[in-house]
Amino acid sequence: MKLVFIQTGGTIDKEYPHTTKGWAFEFGAPAVTRILEKLNPSFEYEIVSVCKKDSLEITDHDRANIAKLINESPESKYVVTHGTDTMIETAKYLEQHVKNKIVVITGAMLPERFYNSDAAIQLGTAIATTNLVKSGIYVAMHGVVKSSSDIKRNLKTGQFF
Amino acid sequence: MKLVFIQTGGTIDKEYPHTTKGWAFEFGAPAVTRILEKLNPSFEYEIVSVCKKDSLEITDHDRANIAKLINESPESKYVVTHGTDTMIETAKYLEQHVKNKIVVITGAMLPERFYNSDAAIQLGTAIATTNLVKSGIYVAMHGVVKSSSDIKRNLKTGQFF
Amino acid sequence: MKLVFIQTGGTIDKEYPHTTKGWAFEFGAPAVTRILEKLNPSFEYEIVSVCKKDSLEITDHDRANIAKLINESPESKYVVTHGTDTMIETAKYLEQHVKNKIVVITGAMLPERFYNSDAAIQLGTAIATTNLVKSGIYVAMHGVVKSSSDIKRNLKTGQFF
Amino acid sequence: MKLVFIQTGGTIDKEYPHTTKGWAFEFGAPAVTRILEKLNPSFEYEIVSVCKKDSLEITDHDRANIAKLINESPESKYVVTHGTDTMIETAKYLEQHVKNKIVVITGAMLPERFYNSDAAIQLGTAIATTNLVKSGIYVAMHGVVKSSSDIKRNLKTGQFF
Repeated sequence: MKLVFIQTGGTIDKEYPHTTKGWAFEFGAPAVTRILEKLNPSFEYEIVSVCKKDSLEITDHDRANIAKLINESPESKYVVTHGTDTMIETAKYLEQHVKNKIVVITGAMLPERFYNSDAAIQLGTAIATTNLVKSGIYVAMHGVVKSSSDIKRNLKTGQFF
Repeated sequence: MKLVFIQTGGTIDKEYPHTTKGWAFEFGAPAVTRILEKLNPSFEYEIVSVCKKDSLEITDHDRANIAKLINESPESKYVVTHGTDTMIETAKYLEQHVKNKIVVITGAMLPERFYNSDAAIQLGTAIATTNLVKSGIYVAMHGVVKSSSDIKRNLKTGQFF
Repeated sequence: MKLVFIQTGGTIDKEYPHTTKGWAFEFGAPAVTRILEKLNPSFEYEIVSVCKKDSLEITDHDRANIAKLINESPESKYVVTHGTDTMIETAKYLEQHVKNKIVVITGAMLPERFYNSDAAIQLGTAIATTNLVKSGIYVAMHGVVKSSSDIKRNLKTGQFF
Repeated sequence: MKLVFIQTGGTIDKEYPHTTKGWAFEFGAPAVTRILEKLNPSFEYEIVSVCKKDSLEITDHDRANIAKLINESPESKYVVTHGTDTMIETAKYLEQHVKNKIVVITGAMLPERFYNSDAAIQLGTAIATTNLVKSGIYVAMHGVVKSSSDIKRNLKTGQFF
């Protein structure tokens, strides 16, 4: 099994600003790298970066870049890390533009850099999903795995279901 | 969806000894509790404890207790946390003694208490598996999900595959 | 020995925003509480909050509130957690306005919520200082302890010395 | 300022066994290295290892090696990390055998590898002490700093005072 992890930004990859006097987060290297070091996985993988953005700033141009990367790659299994605010929009976009591939989108409510982050467990659910589903676009969040057409979000609690 | 998490002991639940002058680890409360607090899952769950043992000390009597708990419970989906040394033996035992239930066994190479632990990501793979498989006994470790008859372990690296 | 910990905000207490669609950090409850739980100290203490601000926004009005709290309290030993950008200014202000008390100012380069944070070790240096100095205003940062008149900062590296 | 950190073993440096089927902890590389990476200290330092032992197994031969290393080194400031069970015995031994040096002994109740460890904050107290004391042997634990003749331990709670 070989997995391709695609970084797009989002909370999972947020770092503290390196500049002094900074207020906002900055995006760092893919948190996936650090999580997979802990897992010591028995599958092969590579990690690529398409963009480093808060998901409110992800555009259809970025989504087209994700689809292009997947469609032009020989691999069949992808995990996309993504901000939660527009995760469902990206899932629906990929549903239209990617065929015959397994794509699982996940993310985190707290940056991986936080010791109380959910990043590792969320990524675990995405990885397992690539083992078990046929082609299609899935979201794996908060312990549930749903297709891009079935996934919903409770905007009050932030939970996907 | 409702999940039942079953504690049996194993590395994932090892704590530092409370006694002074202690050398060996002790088993604590289920690490699953702390991991699920981070995840804030959108599924219902309960956590039960069958035993707190290093998996080298798990006996068929313990395995019978796990099977009994699952067979007599009304729920259909179970995640068993277990030490790695005899995880495959327990999977094969449950294959013989549990029917028409989803059971996923997982564990960790480092205690959840370690900041570099793999526990959260391994548990994530087990949780996702319960979303996607039909009835049967599965092992979810090191990013791969296999049925009890297909799972193998590389004893040199410790990795399941 | 009794210590009074005074929260003013700063990087050490920054939390991820609870609101969705948020970019900037928010200030949470004092990180000192969580650090002292780990230490299980053999001294008595209390934790009070004067303000929750980025140190660039600390005003002389806030500094007067800190001085007033210290001057009007019966205790003799204080640890003030503070943002790094104006830590030295606050130290010099307190030098002018607080007499016959031990006051040690510290903070962190990364929020205590980050697993790679320096918060715990920086706080440790401040606590030890209250054991050993006579009255005066001190800064304890990056492993060095200096009086308010001797402490300097390398603005390129961010290190106090 | 230059500090020499001396590893002797103890809880602070305990790691999970690398061997499969292991019960007891093993001693790893000095935890001080990882803690100082977080601190990014503005002092110079080196880290040396005298032994890697549970403190119940530290002998006067080991203590003589620590004293020899300190007495024969040109540096004046030392932090010794040590198991807690015989920390006071080692402090009293060094009191007899080391003159005109600053030596501060510290350790931890939980291994530095645990996310709820006290190691970083304890080490912080030892580092600050080397800034502030005249020559002598000190123990810095649980937030208090005492000379080798004044330090005591509550064997019920484990706390030094």
